[in-house]
Amino acid sequence: MFSSTASNNNKPILYSYCHSSCSWRVRIALGLKKIPYELVPTSLLKTDASHSYTSEYTEMNPMQQVPVLKIDGHTLCDSVAIMHYIEETRKDNPLLPQNPQVRAKVREIVEILCSGIQPLQNRIVLAHLGNEKSKKWAAHWITRGFIGLEKVLSASSGKYCVGDNISMADCCLVPQVYNARRFRINFDQFPTIMRINANLESEPTVHESHPHNQPDYQKKKLKND
Amino acid sequence: MFSSTASNNNKPILYSYCHSSCSWRVRIALGLKKIPYELVPTSLLKTDASHSYTSEYTEMNPMQQVPVLKIDGHTLCDSVAIMHYIEETRKDNPLLPQNPQVRAKVREIVEILCSGIQPLQNRIVLAHLGNEKSKKWAAHWITRGFIGLEKVLSASSGKYCVGDNISMADCCLVPQVYNARRFRINFDQFPTIMRINANLESEPTVHESHPHNQPDYQKKKLKND
Repeated sequence: MFSSTASNNNKPILYSYCHSSCSWRVRIALGLKKIPYELVPTSLLKTDASHSYTSEYTEMNPMQQVPVLKIDGHTLCDSVAIMHYIEETRKDNPLLPQNPQVRAKVREIVEILCSGIQPLQNRIVLAHLGNEKSKKWAAHWITRGFIGLEKVLSASSGKYCVGDNISMADCCLVPQVYNARRFRINFDQFPTIMRINANLESEPTVHESHPHNQPDYQKKKLKND
Repeated sequence: MFSSTASNNNKPILYSYCHSSCSWRVRIALGLKKIPYELVPTSLLKTDASHSYTSEYTEMNPMQQVPVLKIDGHTLCDSVAIMHYIEETRKDNPLLPQNPQVRAKVREIVEILCSGIQPLQNRIVLAHLGNEKSKKWAAHWITRGFIGLEKVLSASSGKYCVGDNISMADCCLVPQVYNARRFRINFDQFPTIMRINANLESEPTVHESHPHNQPDYQKKKLKND
């Protein structure tokens, strides 16, 4: 679905880091929407001690995070904003249901994952905590979030997070489960999360979007990977 | 705009805690949309040692967070999902612009505030850190987030966060600036944030929604308040 060298055609360009949850959400969303794109690997590891990006990248995204998507002549930042943009401008293969209340359930799950769990265990926060404390911290907050999420999903899910139609929520679930595995949380209490994630992992576009299938993935194991 | 006792009429019912940023976002949004509602004060302080809510509340929101909005026969959780729901079901007084790219900018700012900053300094995380470390931690992450946000807003803002039309982003900015004041960050480097916040504070609905103007506000100062 992607090619790895930026060119001057009109394909959207995704600045992505293979291990970034937020980049992965957008890779899944672009794949599910069947939007071809070019990928520019943008390493979180090319940082100085204060975790700054290059000034050129900071110009594009002052929050110094991946992903950034260049599309339709615009430069868009933030995975949730990007997913909504492609949903609102490309009607095929919807990532949101039509019913407003069901849309609210999808967005609730998106926010549980994207604001309730992921920010507490992202790379910058764990680096700030230091290696000794970071694994325990990450496992604590992922487990706490998953306890609530399991209850939400046990009421909302079918094959996927909300019923049997794949949605934005599913784009966010897969990267968070991947991170949960990295921090070796106990999955026994999360059967619904694991069932949905297994369904998602069997989707070809989810497989293609996996960090291990990205051009910037290196087989040498990262810390906690 | 609100009455403080739940009744059986058809007004939406907001479960809100005066000091909760997420509750405050929704109070502002309901006010800007001119949607009358009833308010049920729901104290974050009525928690046991593990910060659990009552089982009745947990049934409504397994994430054990405020706000919850009962509206149109549904129980909705999460401030961002709720703001989108009222926007999609009530067209008057829009909180999102029409242009998809400008909508993306509004949502980018919403996510900077709601996933990039607030989760790192919410009450549960600070309680987990313990009193000694929590103020420094909160100030660090708010300052870091505001450095990026200031750059984003310096390009996007007019009178409000995105141009001259008030939006969902503004609903999220005011509570975060309030928290930043509580943690005594240095505002000298954030002139755009402060300019927009001053414009917002002069809005009657923002004034009405302020924690100090809520029925559950007690004059006795909270820790860090």
